[in-house]
Amino acid sequence: MRIEKKQIEEVNKRDLKSHQDHYNFLGAQLTNQGHEVDEVVKKLSQFQVAIPSWALGAGGTRFARFSYYGEPSTLGQKLEDVGVLHALTKTAGAVSLHIPWDVPEDYKAISELASSLDITFDAVNSNTFQDQLNQKESYKYGSLGDRSSVVREQATAHNIDVINIGKKLGSKALTVWLADGASFPGQNNFQESLGNTESSLKKIYASLPQDWKMLIEYKPYEPNFYSTIIQDWGTSFMLANACGERATTLVDLGHHLPNTNIEQIVATLMYKGKLGGFHFNDSKYGDDDLTVGSIKPYALFLIFNELVYGMENNPKNPELSWMIDASHNLKDPLEDLIQSLDAIQEAYAKALLIDQKMLKEAQKDNDVTLCQEILQRAYRTDVRPLIAEARLIQGGAINPIKAYRNLGIRQNLINERGANSKASGL
Amino acid sequence: MRIEKKQIEEVNKRDLKSHQDHYNFLGAQLTNQGHEVDEVVKKLSQFQVAIPSWALGAGGTRFARFSYYGEPSTLGQKLEDVGVLHALTKTAGAVSLHIPWDVPEDYKAISELASSLDITFDAVNSNTFQDQLNQKESYKYGSLGDRSSVVREQATAHNIDVINIGKKLGSKALTVWLADGASFPGQNNFQESLGNTESSLKKIYASLPQDWKMLIEYKPYEPNFYSTIIQDWGTSFMLANACGERATTLVDLGHHLPNTNIEQIVATLMYKGKLGGFHFNDSKYGDDDLTVGSIKPYALFLIFNELVYGMENNPKNPELSWMIDASHNLKDPLEDLIQSLDAIQEAYAKALLIDQKMLKEAQKDNDVTLCQEILQRAYRTDVRPLIAEARLIQGGAINPIKAYRNLGIRQNLINERGANSKASGL
Amino acid sequence: MRIEKKQIEEVNKRDLKSHQDHYNFLGAQLTNQGHEVDEVVKKLSQFQVAIPSWALGAGGTRFARFSYYGEPSTLGQKLEDVGVLHALTKTAGAVSLHIPWDVPEDYKAISELASSLDITFDAVNSNTFQDQLNQKESYKYGSLGDRSSVVREQATAHNIDVINIGKKLGSKALTVWLADGASFPGQNNFQESLGNTESSLKKIYASLPQDWKMLIEYKPYEPNFYSTIIQDWGTSFMLANACGERATTLVDLGHHLPNTNIEQIVATLMYKGKLGGFHFNDSKYGDDDLTVGSIKPYALFLIFNELVYGMENNPKNPELSWMIDASHNLKDPLEDLIQSLDAIQEAYAKALLIDQKMLKEAQKDNDVTLCQEILQRAYRTDVRPLIAEARLIQGGAINPIKAYRNLGIRQNLINERGANSKASGL
Amino acid sequence: MRIEKKQIEEVNKRDLKSHQDHYNFLGAQLTNQGHEVDEVVKKLSQFQVAIPSWALGAGGTRFARFSYYGEPSTLGQKLEDVGVLHALTKTAGAVSLHIPWDVPEDYKAISELASSLDITFDAVNSNTFQDQLNQKESYKYGSLGDRSSVVREQATAHNIDVINIGKKLGSKALTVWLADGASFPGQNNFQESLGNTESSLKKIYASLPQDWKMLIEYKPYEPNFYSTIIQDWGTSFMLANACGERATTLVDLGHHLPNTNIEQIVATLMYKGKLGGFHFNDSKYGDDDLTVGSIKPYALFLIFNELVYGMENNPKNPELSWMIDASHNLKDPLEDLIQSLDAIQEAYAKALLIDQKMLKEAQKDNDVTLCQEILQRAYRTDVRPLIAEARLIQGGAINPIKAYRNLGIRQNLINERGANSKASGL
Repeated sequence: MRIEKKQIEEVNKRDLKSHQDHYNFLGAQLTNQGHEVDEVVKKLSQFQVAIPSWALGAGGTRFARFSYYGEPSTLGQKLEDVGVLHALTKTAGAVSLHIPWDVPEDYKAISELASSLDITFDAVNSNTFQDQLNQKESYKYGSLGDRSSVVREQATAHNIDVINIGKKLGSKALTVWLADGASFPGQNNFQESLGNTESSLKKIYASLPQDWKMLIEYKPYEPNFYSTIIQDWGTSFMLANACGERATTLVDLGHHLPNTNIEQIVATLMYKGKLGGFHFNDSKYGDDDLTVGSIKPYALFLIFNELVYGMENNPKNPELSWMIDASHNLKDPLEDLIQSLDAIQEAYAKALLIDQKMLKEAQKDNDVTLCQEILQRAYRTDVRPLIAEARLIQGGAINPIKAYRNLGIRQNLINERGANSKASGL
Repeated sequence: MRIEKKQIEEVNKRDLKSHQDHYNFLGAQLTNQGHEVDEVVKKLSQFQVAIPSWALGAGGTRFARFSYYGEPSTLGQKLEDVGVLHALTKTAGAVSLHIPWDVPEDYKAISELASSLDITFDAVNSNTFQDQLNQKESYKYGSLGDRSSVVREQATAHNIDVINIGKKLGSKALTVWLADGASFPGQNNFQESLGNTESSLKKIYASLPQDWKMLIEYKPYEPNFYSTIIQDWGTSFMLANACGERATTLVDLGHHLPNTNIEQIVATLMYKGKLGGFHFNDSKYGDDDLTVGSIKPYALFLIFNELVYGMENNPKNPELSWMIDASHNLKDPLEDLIQSLDAIQEAYAKALLIDQKMLKEAQKDNDVTLCQEILQRAYRTDVRPLIAEARLIQGGAINPIKAYRNLGIRQNLINERGANSKASGL
Repeated sequence: MRIEKKQIEEVNKRDLKSHQDHYNFLGAQLTNQGHEVDEVVKKLSQFQVAIPSWALGAGGTRFARFSYYGEPSTLGQKLEDVGVLHALTKTAGAVSLHIPWDVPEDYKAISELASSLDITFDAVNSNTFQDQLNQKESYKYGSLGDRSSVVREQATAHNIDVINIGKKLGSKALTVWLADGASFPGQNNFQESLGNTESSLKKIYASLPQDWKMLIEYKPYEPNFYSTIIQDWGTSFMLANACGERATTLVDLGHHLPNTNIEQIVATLMYKGKLGGFHFNDSKYGDDDLTVGSIKPYALFLIFNELVYGMENNPKNPELSWMIDASHNLKDPLEDLIQSLDAIQEAYAKALLIDQKMLKEAQKDNDVTLCQEILQRAYRTDVRPLIAEARLIQGGAINPIKAYRNLGIRQNLINERGANSKASGL
Repeated sequence: MRIEKKQIEEVNKRDLKSHQDHYNFLGAQLTNQGHEVDEVVKKLSQFQVAIPSWALGAGGTRFARFSYYGEPSTLGQKLEDVGVLHALTKTAGAVSLHIPWDVPEDYKAISELASSLDITFDAVNSNTFQDQLNQKESYKYGSLGDRSSVVREQATAHNIDVINIGKKLGSKALTVWLADGASFPGQNNFQESLGNTESSLKKIYASLPQDWKMLIEYKPYEPNFYSTIIQDWGTSFMLANACGERATTLVDLGHHLPNTNIEQIVATLMYKGKLGGFHFNDSKYGDDDLTVGSIKPYALFLIFNELVYGMENNPKNPELSWMIDASHNLKDPLEDLIQSLDAIQEAYAKALLIDQKMLKEAQKDNDVTLCQEILQRAYRTDVRPLIAEARLIQGGAINPIKAYRNLGIRQNLINERGANSKASGL
């Protein structure tokens, strides 16, 4: 299924007047305060976040999974779902594939479909945390960091395969997330595991095309519950340095110990030119994979403050790969993703409204009160009109959730695919 | 020193037009959405938060304390500081005294001073976590829960003294915070400590006037680092039940383990009619005592959502005692408190904008997406005009920080008190 | 399959002499220090822990599950597995069934099988966190605490069914674990959810036989990631009080926020006569469900210190239901359970060696150094000979893991059941 | 005061026979299992831990400090206290000075005193987290990482002063702990702060003698409660790499977020040759600074497992500086330190008993059960006789706490110094 521009225009009609009033009022205010509103809106409209192919069906926990209706069961249907998101929000113009769940059968057809939906292929993801049918070696005890060289070679070869698949689709980055680690003290030798991982990553890096990035993800625990080989940004950064310039660190918001100051990690990595990508989600306890911005929106704003700063001040840092990585256990996955996209735009817009010059002055004076005022002034601004405007000028919906519902999209998907279709992959 | 109404009016002049534009625009929007804006502003203007007498000087850590300039060194000066806060914000119309730091020498003079500043006396606080000069028994190993009956009696008697002091000033509540606990396994017998604490609290409760509340605070750790006798809301609630109807639980935002869902605790206590008071602050790691709303403003909003709900739906719950309990290590304490008061008003205002009826419907339909939309809609609203209006109609400042600075208040205090005056108490 | 006593005797032979030497040496030492060694060994040999029926196959995470070989695929086979554990360790003389995974087809046959293996039926567990095939109402959004009365009734009826099944097998307790909660702020109304849960539990309690206990489990998060209705011991305790005397709280070691002082919770509940049962496991991050004692053995010892104290000093507290509740993702499940049983016995033995009289004295003197010495003296003792003796005198193995391997039990199970048999249930 | 060898011999007499029996029995057991017991005892007797000069008086919290009796009030008295500890335990043969609290007035006298007590001078510590009387610039907002170059220069110069003082005493390492950070979002620019810190550290490093190490400590929070410039090992490691080969990372056990896998950090740093030193203490919640081994002894054992492994397998890693860094709020500081020294020896002894060869085999086989058995076998061994023997053969006490009390040392100190003497410094 595919949403036509006209349909969206039709839905927008009802809110257009009200939107324009708000936008004009806010615009005047912000202009008064010295902001270039057009510039902000332009930046918002250029910001594109990749949708991972596995996020279009309902997720689950180790206790249960409750399926949603009308889930996409082929790669083509997944692209169509991303197409719906992009048509409505104009900020989801990329997809991130997961191999082997999403190997195209017909590359040409898939490429054309994506292109017709204005969707590009962002980072490709390898999978060495599950065993596939007929797989020779098991990843039960490890993959790129496993003690057995045969397992490591299989896992390395798989990553190189993933690169080759990505090349055919125009991807420019490989994301490596390792489940490798141990659930019990003594199970692994830390130094050996780290050495093995380093050496496998270097082999993969050797196969990385010159215009690609490698993104090395870190995570403190889960699915292993005593240790993870790449447990934190420090380890990822160290490994990226060992591989070379195009190897970078990927930050997933949910992959941190309680109370971690993530924005500082972002700043440090950008300072060193080593932040390669970002996985958005939100969480209260662990890697909860909740909708972006649903739990700690201020923390997200502070992170965007660092991202905006880094994008302007760290030319050495590569362009970032942005992706949502959440699990939709209770909501309609597409609605959940729309809410995530919205929250990302909101944090970005507010970060763009921070008066960096005044902040620098206040910092210089050790005027801590004023520093806080400046951040809160930006954060307290209601930026919804800016985001709506950014969508509107590109043909998107003023209010995407409302449009999604008014257009009866989920019902259409169920009609097309059947209620009990199941998302391939997870 | 004392701020005259005229001074504030003078400062407000410059921002008046802009404020009115914003307020009118927002008001129209909200009215459109079905809100009774006047009602919201009225509630905001009625909401009064107590300032603790110990928060008017700079705080410190176990590593160092850096004094601020012009700190109040007498109880009278402390009241004057609260007077400044109240004149500017119109939401700080109460003070919470800490005994023995703030025992009045002349009750009549103190009462008159407070009254002239439109300040009432909220809960009085006892102190059994420090030894005072010439104190007979030491609280090193405990107070109300100590093994020694002599220590317990001294601590009990002190609390009764505090009640008597409070009675003379018109307080209607006693706050008991205990540092009692252990830093090492085996140091205390848990059951004995709990029993001792229960029995001491009952004795204090027996001396509580009929129109008073007792507020029992809980805290998981610090200054003891293995266990605290009243470690969580469950223990406080159990003790309050053992004492009687007027014994209640006090929630301090910083007194929880990482990731605690505090809003659920608030809801549970109000459901049982046992939430007596609230200590506001913010924190990232432990009992950090930072400015309210400076770290997790969305969590504060969710808490206020429960408070608003409970105030409307739980008639059995007593009226709450609100207090800021933060430590001002780096900022001008008065500016820090103004920022806290502002953040409280903001969270309250946004909570008042939640469409409770629509929320109830969405919950009934298990429409999780919509539930989130409803909360975020309220939260994303820029409520600053509402808060400014609530202040303005009572003679307060449109922008209190700006007014505080324009009026040169800190400099005046330094002139009056000397740069090196030190806050009595902490 | 079934282990004969002779087989164990045969395996024990090799270690007998060495065991006796150690036991005699340690016994003399302990007797010297004033301990009644026989009494300790007797208590150890009487301590029986239930094995949950779902723990006999490999567990998994939301990312993957790697099956083990020779898993039991029927209830009979599960009992046989428990029989193996009990024959070797003599401390696993009970099983805890999970309904609907383990409904017996032939009650008489199952009872006889259990009896022949010297196994009793401990608490029965209901399941309202998953949907079963052909189930009328879904538990996706809740069960006993759901907004819909139809869902609540179905879940309540299921719990009553579970009681009836348990009655036929001689169980004396029902364990209620609820996944109910919310993954997003606003999704549920806390007060309503709590009220619904209370009312459902009361209905179940009304069907509880006079000689049964109800065990109410709590958990802060997972599978819901914003809130759980019964989030902590305080909520469970409150609900148990609302139900009546035979309703109690169940503590699962993994169901706490980071850094929680669990031993203090145990002491508080026993003080109030409300600790009903205990689920053993270990964890580093969340509800990791690792082998008991594999991560924090000293914390387990401190908990047993409170349990031993409570069992001796709190006659009002009911007899406790002990169960292992771990997930065996990487090890042979039976070996994992043997290690857990061993760790429990170890902690219990060490707790029994604490000199309670001397500790009381040291506490009275505020001799914190000595309090710590007394606990550490007990903990540092190598109690393995005591545990081995407790097993030996009942016909168990001196070293159960060694015996399990020497007897080739897993291979036998594979031969009997096939390598790819899968555990029913999870 | 000074303990004579004879006094210790006298006290040992009573326990000698019993010790020898235990030691012989354990020795035979361990020899049987293939251990070289003499080698283990030798390693234990060679292991020396530095006592920080500030740990000899009672510590406190931000709420209160309760002094102990007979605290050392001069550097000479502090050395005497360390002398007492070393005489009894034979494992405290070094002191770590804190400047400016412990600047010697007479270097020769202090050196001779130390030498006569068999005490060497380990790492010297700078202090830029407090303002000293008559200090020109304040460290309120920062020191080595401060925005102001004047502040940075003052802090840098102080560190170089500290090196010069250390040189006169034979120290070979400088420990830099920075309180620098921010308590509020926006207060500092992360990138600027990090850059400033890096540049100051490089300047200090340039003054570091060729045979010295620089130890860079990290800490996630406190005394700043939003961010710390050197927040984790990754940041410290990055800074150490920027400075040069002799710059290393120092791990303080209490300076981590909840649930951090510290042993893995140790392994990673040793793998890279960058672990320079270790601060021992224990904690349940934050930087609680409790007695070593009083809360998580198994975690300490796992850390020592990595240390032992690294000392044998990472020749590139420098020799480590070991120090206790705890705060003695409730116990006699000397008793507390003895308990810490004991716990360190215990963890070290147990780590030395891990059968590394068998472990390597079990790891190779993915025999997770056996890996755990091997670690637990070592850990469950009662190693107290080994530690006592290591002390005994050097003239120390079999049971140092007992000896300390029997010899009435605290009373002697009170007699010499007066009950109310106060430790200089903290």
